Amino acid sequence: MLVAVVGVGLVGSEFIHQLLSIPTESSPFRLISLSSSSRSVFLDPAQAITSTAKWKSILSASNEKPNFETLTQKLSALISSSTKVAIVDNTSSEDIAALYPVWLKAGINVITPNKKAYSGDLGLYERIVSASNESGARFLNESTVGAGLPVISTLKELVATGDKVKKIEGVFSGTMSYIFNEFSTGSSEGPSFSSVVSVAREKGYTEPHPADDLNGFDVARKLTILSRTIGSAASLPSLQSFASVQTASLIPAALEGIPTGDEFLQRLPEFDSDFDKMRKEASEEGMVLRFVGVVDGVKGEVKAGLEKYPTSHPFATSLGGSDNIIMFHTERYSPRPLIVQGAGAGAAVTAMGVLGDLLKLV
Amino acid sequence: MLVAVVGVGLVGSEFIHQLLSIPTESSPFRLISLSSSSRSVFLDPAQAITSTAKWKSILSASNEKPNFETLTQKLSALISSSTKVAIVDNTSSEDIAALYPVWLKAGINVITPNKKAYSGDLGLYERIVSASNESGARFLNESTVGAGLPVISTLKELVATGDKVKKIEGVFSGTMSYIFNEFSTGSSEGPSFSSVVSVAREKGYTEPHPADDLNGFDVARKLTILSRTIGSAASLPSLQSFASVQTASLIPAALEGIPTGDEFLQRLPEFDSDFDKMRKEASEEGMVLRFVGVVDGVKGEVKAGLEKYPTSHPFATSLGGSDNIIMFHTERYSPRPLIVQGAGAGAAVTAMGVLGDLLKLV
Repeated sequence: MLVAVVGVGLVGSEFIHQLLSIPTESSPFRLISLSSSSRSVFLDPAQAITSTAKWKSILSASNEKPNFETLTQKLSALISSSTKVAIVDNTSSEDIAALYPVWLKAGINVITPNKKAYSGDLGLYERIVSASNESGARFLNESTVGAGLPVISTLKELVATGDKVKKIEGVFSGTMSYIFNEFSTGSSEGPSFSSVVSVAREKGYTEPHPADDLNGFDVARKLTILSRTIGSAASLPSLQSFASVQTASLIPAALEGIPTGDEFLQRLPEFDSDFDKMRKEASEEGMVLRFVGVVDGVKGEVKAGLEKYPTSHPFATSLGGSDNIIMFHTERYSPRPLIVQGAGAGAAVTAMGVLGDLLKLV
Repeated sequence: MLVAVVGVGLVGSEFIHQLLSIPTESSPFRLISLSSSSRSVFLDPAQAITSTAKWKSILSASNEKPNFETLTQKLSALISSSTKVAIVDNTSSEDIAALYPVWLKAGINVITPNKKAYSGDLGLYERIVSASNESGARFLNESTVGAGLPVISTLKELVATGDKVKKIEGVFSGTMSYIFNEFSTGSSEGPSFSSVVSVAREKGYTEPHPADDLNGFDVARKLTILSRTIGSAASLPSLQSFASVQTASLIPAALEGIPTGDEFLQRLPEFDSDFDKMRKEASEEGMVLRFVGVVDGVKGEVKAGLEKYPTSHPFATSLGGSDNIIMFHTERYSPRPLIVQGAGAGAAVTAMGVLGDLLKLV
């Protein structure tokens, strides 16, 4: 299989490293193209990149600008009955996501941790599905939810084998997981909300602007992907985009639209008493606070927000660090759910999910 | 893909039901052969079985005895560049397992929840691997560990993408899970061991002879499969068979070899005080007892036995019913492991794992 990589940032670099760490003699893959935002290389399959030490210099020595029309044409020309081609999109770009239908229609498989295409406009998603059905080329997106954790593949298998998904419930954001594992432990007191968010930002767990995590959009995007993966097998609302998910943002109304992360953090303490009060109330009921996502195939609901869970619940007892946890309640996994838990972010585990998808194609 | 099913007991029947529940128009499978211990049918692909209501009568109307040499020949003759063939072995027979190398060599894919081949004699396992490498036909065995839970596939992906498995630790037996979830809750007192085992047997959670669970062999078999799946990627001992696993049986020495389950249960109360004592000691240390399996790639150890875990550990807080739980400690999933949890036995979830494997081939 010939592989073209788009995006060579943290995840992209780690993916290339993992891909090229498969011994060349036994690897079913030939890496023939790399594109960053400013440069691009395209090599003859016989000259495929094999060295983890050299790919960066090969790319930086190129004077070619990325041109995705040319890339599509060149890759299409290489497809044959014995040669498959895949593009791995390691960007988070909406523009690249918009190209998936073109690539799939041309017979190029698409693999990506980029959530944009699958959680964005329903029209784009439908064009992706129909392009894939038309050509037989596949799109795989395991790393869009829970990074390398087996979430999408597990859900697809439940659905494909005829199980009925009643409810998926989970902590889908590593950032939100860290924040509430620290903030709400069952005790009525603890560190202030703003201090926990500040520490999370210092540790690199949040986006530069913490509001980009606290708005819940990342969770809403993941729920949209899960909901679309279930498809018509449950009576779920048809989501026009992730914006259709009922999302209860944690950004205080007065802090909406503040342009910088620094300014946001400076003003967040004004609202600490509100969060304190919620923690205290939860604690009095023997509960903790967790920011969760729910896809409810029985109630026909898809929602993200802060919920209370008993201190004996796995979301309280079993979570730590920035772990994700996902519970699948289904007809077969009932009354006790199927649970997947572990790190749901980070370059190594995200790249692993991408490479795992690529391995499924061979 | 043409499918032949061997074994039509609980799991086999459920598998056939799930397979035939995929609408015929969209199903990539054609079920052309069924074999029970006494009968067999083989149909022309154009006459493939499509009805969940009729397969039993089709089989019982047959006067053919199962003949696996003929089956192999007939299936081999149907393989072509456009037609794949798979045998699904839903038995737990050692004799059928011994045929896998023949089938694989002939180009027939083998899918099974039968643990015998992968946990038995190392020679058989090696013949399976080399037959598969030789012909390109695949053997998939997701349901041999944790039934439909994504355990084997997750482990394969970790290894294939270059992660290093440090340790796999889990509760791998639904029976043992139920018994110790009931027996040891962290309190110093509780129901007697023999009473818990009796109830488990009444509920159908144990084998007719409970010693067949308490000997720990089922766990040792699963550890052997995991250990071989990791392969040379960790410094694990080469297991000649599951009997090479260090297994601490729970059968009191005086009760070894008792022929019937009834007699065994009648005498088990003589040893309740020993189990009481262990529970009490664990409780005084803030621990619970769990029967676990460990594959330790760092210490180079594979072992099954009773261990103590803090009452705050997921094996204590998160387990219930007859759930399995499996923790993968790896270089990437460190310090916090990747965890998979849920029902690890039962016809519906086992058949689901088998059908999931079959879907991976198309």
